[in-house]
Amino acid sequence: MEGDQKVELSEALALGPGWRHACHALLYAPDPRKLFGRIPMRFAVLMQMRFDGRLGFPGGFVDAQDSCLEDGLNRELREELGDAMSAFRVERSDYRSSHIAARPRVVAHFYAKRLTLEQLQAVEARAPQAKDHGLEVLGLVRVPLYILRDGGGGLPAFLENSFIGAAREQLLEALRDLELLDPGTIAKLKIPDSK
Amino acid sequence: MEGDQKVELSEALALGPGWRHACHALLYAPDPRKLFGRIPMRFAVLMQMRFDGRLGFPGGFVDAQDSCLEDGLNRELREELGDAMSAFRVERSDYRSSHIAARPRVVAHFYAKRLTLEQLQAVEARAPQAKDHGLEVLGLVRVPLYILRDGGGGLPAFLENSFIGAAREQLLEALRDLELLDPGTIAKLKIPDSK
Repeated sequence: MEGDQKVELSEALALGPGWRHACHALLYAPDPRKLFGRIPMRFAVLMQMRFDGRLGFPGGFVDAQDSCLEDGLNRELREELGDAMSAFRVERSDYRSSHIAARPRVVAHFYAKRLTLEQLQAVEARAPQAKDHGLEVLGLVRVPLYILRDGGGGLPAFLENSFIGAAREQLLEALRDLELLDPGTIAKLKIPDSK
Repeated sequence: MEGDQKVELSEALALGPGWRHACHALLYAPDPRKLFGRIPMRFAVLMQMRFDGRLGFPGGFVDAQDSCLEDGLNRELREELGDAMSAFRVERSDYRSSHIAARPRVVAHFYAKRLTLEQLQAVEARAPQAKDHGLEVLGLVRVPLYILRDGGGGLPAFLENSFIGAAREQLLEALRDLELLDPGTIAKLKIPDSK
């Protein structure tokens, strides 16, 4: 949510047993294709429509049985995205940030994992067979990374959709910090500089 | 778009050669499952994230080569949704309504087709291999037909997303007229009666 407080991972891990930890991941892959033969897609970036009607990243709560944050994250990703997730693992090295959520005693950790386009296409192809598909997860969507000629279509209109928690902020930070957008698009969107 | 004018099909077909005709379809199937073991999903209703960052229904413009509206619609559905569409055809009997669009000289026809859950799942499974996937179509999503305990999550939050043209209005009319929602949800959403 807007106004969520960003914390260092070390602080988050020291929060104590009364806190719940959630982990979510942005999966992306370079995409060489062009929309209408002229607009570079640049990258395929995955988000999902959630059961609550809002867009978010795949992932969920880490359980007491999970031996680390990433074990919980990868377990959740398998439940939500299916067996194409067994081809790779989201690791601590993919960690991006942590936010204290508006909900009491929840801290949300965010990861971004670069895949090959073939790996990402396999995730999309297998996701409809995942355990949570049609229940907690209503579908996967790619994020448009361009601005159409009318100035509003593409990423600006996408950002007007409903997002859960810190997902919109996490998306914008990742698009900027991983250099998934071209500089012209960043300038037009007025995304703030990295702190 | 809000304020679009509804017209009879006969009027729309008499509009003359200067007009372009677009056709879109809502595909749905009964879904007996329950979210979290207690919230009936009722139906799986498909929409898609479009290249412009907005939600809409699959379909598109009818070409001069198409011999009728439904030929154009089914051609577009195959391009956007892939070869699972060859198992059935959206027919004139699935027609619901026509809207004069805000854009000059475009009339948008809307259809709704009831499938079996197996047919709808096949559409979802094959859609990532469709010609337009990752370009004009960024992903398929199901529409949540329930309201969560917090009063906002589910269909109300979904309706806060960005929609193209008359898609939000077409969705609400179809949910009401095809009785895809339970009466309690309709009352809470304050959907107007059929005219």
